[in-house]
Amino acid sequence: MYAPHVASRRVAIVTNPVVAPFYLERLTASLQRAGAQATPILIADGEPAKDWSTLDHVFDELLAARYGRDAVICALGGGVVGDLAGFAAAVYQRGIAFLQVPTTLLAQVDSSVGGKTAINHPRGKNMIGAFHQPLAVVSDIATLDSLPERELAAGLAEVIKHGLVLDASFIDWLEQNLEALRRREHAALAFAVRRCCELKAKVVAADEREAGLRAILNFGHTFGHAIEASAGYGTWLHGEAVAAGMMMASELSLRLGLASPQEVMRVRQLLLRAGLPVQGPAISPQSLLEWMRVDKKAGGGRMRFVLLCGLGAAQMRADLPEEAVIEVIRDCSARP
Amino acid sequence: MYAPHVASRRVAIVTNPVVAPFYLERLTASLQRAGAQATPILIADGEPAKDWSTLDHVFDELLAARYGRDAVICALGGGVVGDLAGFAAAVYQRGIAFLQVPTTLLAQVDSSVGGKTAINHPRGKNMIGAFHQPLAVVSDIATLDSLPERELAAGLAEVIKHGLVLDASFIDWLEQNLEALRRREHAALAFAVRRCCELKAKVVAADEREAGLRAILNFGHTFGHAIEASAGYGTWLHGEAVAAGMMMASELSLRLGLASPQEVMRVRQLLLRAGLPVQGPAISPQSLLEWMRVDKKAGGGRMRFVLLCGLGAAQMRADLPEEAVIEVIRDCSARP
Repeated sequence: MYAPHVASRRVAIVTNPVVAPFYLERLTASLQRAGAQATPILIADGEPAKDWSTLDHVFDELLAARYGRDAVICALGGGVVGDLAGFAAAVYQRGIAFLQVPTTLLAQVDSSVGGKTAINHPRGKNMIGAFHQPLAVVSDIATLDSLPERELAAGLAEVIKHGLVLDASFIDWLEQNLEALRRREHAALAFAVRRCCELKAKVVAADEREAGLRAILNFGHTFGHAIEASAGYGTWLHGEAVAAGMMMASELSLRLGLASPQEVMRVRQLLLRAGLPVQGPAISPQSLLEWMRVDKKAGGGRMRFVLLCGLGAAQMRADLPEEAVIEVIRDCSARP
Repeated sequence: MYAPHVASRRVAIVTNPVVAPFYLERLTASLQRAGAQATPILIADGEPAKDWSTLDHVFDELLAARYGRDAVICALGGGVVGDLAGFAAAVYQRGIAFLQVPTTLLAQVDSSVGGKTAINHPRGKNMIGAFHQPLAVVSDIATLDSLPERELAAGLAEVIKHGLVLDASFIDWLEQNLEALRRREHAALAFAVRRCCELKAKVVAADEREAGLRAILNFGHTFGHAIEASAGYGTWLHGEAVAAGMMMASELSLRLGLASPQEVMRVRQLLLRAGLPVQGPAISPQSLLEWMRVDKKAGGGRMRFVLLCGLGAAQMRADLPEEAVIEVIRDCSARP
């Protein structure tokens, strides 16, 4: 599996102290059997680690060990490790090869696919980054056995998102199999991971640089990023913030006559059954709006929203009345 | 000239306090006439500014002013401004558009063309970067009138390099026109800038990512980067270090029977007439070698050298005996 990509190359495995005890030894052995020379680079766990100082630590280790342009960076972990290690690979010596070995549901269904890499900036999430496609994404469903409950739920948020914006029949399937997913039945997880990768790959192949279509994968993310940023990165998991954001975006779709009350209720039920929040934090709508304005999806200063058109389809809108957005935030936020 | 690229877009002009008083007002007016909304972002002058903290300052300004993905970054200045602003454009919100307005000879003939962008790392020059092609490169020969003597000479090093590795007839022309270039005769400068851009563009078009051919443009740079790094960035100008590095690489070509003593003498004469150093600093060969080993052109840990094959042609070699390299450094360095 690894040999075509790493044979006789040096591989730096970027991982963290939470993931390493479970999988580092096994991955190192696999890479060595494939003919690679593999060494780990450890970074801190959690979203706050997705910053410049962690990235610089990776560069420092790579340079100290004299990794050249023919080296490979391998991300072993969740979305934070994948995003940061991928960005390191994108800009180290102007770009070296990159392998994704995602160990969280969120990374397996979403962040490891599509080549988006980034670090956060104090002024906004994923503000500094690059498009850099991995050589391969190797997802082992068994790694999800060790995933904390809360992170499994956060991953389900992105699973549900893929259904909502792209595939009505996958939503039907999720409504029937959500408990199997939460029980971590491997067959159900394998189906969901495969289906999400297929759906996402099709979108990314059509629009890698997010000139248009790909933006629908940001459903719930304009609100979600603002929730994450306003609360301080790491307080809300990305998937949790996206869940609350999808609820807001669904309510907005309802108000604009693009989705029915029944459809919005199905979104809400799915999120609740997945153990996800359907409300944002106790913050004033105006404050959240401020955080949203700096979001990079803002084109020419206008805020854009992905809205549902029923279930399984979505569209991008930039012409929304601010009052509607404010009302939706108010209705979907915890009371201060 | 600017309108097709910037009409009705926001443009952040990255420049420094040395260049700004000469050209910022005029460029801002040109961009505004072309329908853009232009605002400057000032960074410090000189090679030490090509670092993470300066880059982060640019990100901070861009984010504070809410520049979106449709904004344009315009580099007004020399190689440091172009490399840093280009890298900022490459990774800000995963990549935005970029314009080069080079105001030094080095930037006009070399660094602004070809899409290489980067910042330095304490462990090595240009270690963190990206390939990111500009929308356009706008070179105004008249800006060279205000260039300090020493920087003009540094630019001539890269002019000479293009001839040495690619075009024997351009070397002949340089031998006849070097004094005209140093007197800044516009016709001679315009010819040299155009010829270098043509030569470089042809190489970059054939091999943008430096898989092979493009590497010959690094002639003198393996030695040169080590000279710059060992002395501390900014002590030697890039072109000065490259000049001494080209002398070392020419001597190495002579030792390997690829160039004749007469040809190496012509290289030396050209560099001296351009006012450039033909000796490295007073550093032990072993120390310089240490700096060279970390250079990113090292593939699989082996050091690679671009060598002349006569004048006007070059080749990449990775199989050189270390003693030959050490001897050449010793012969071409100042006595400690």
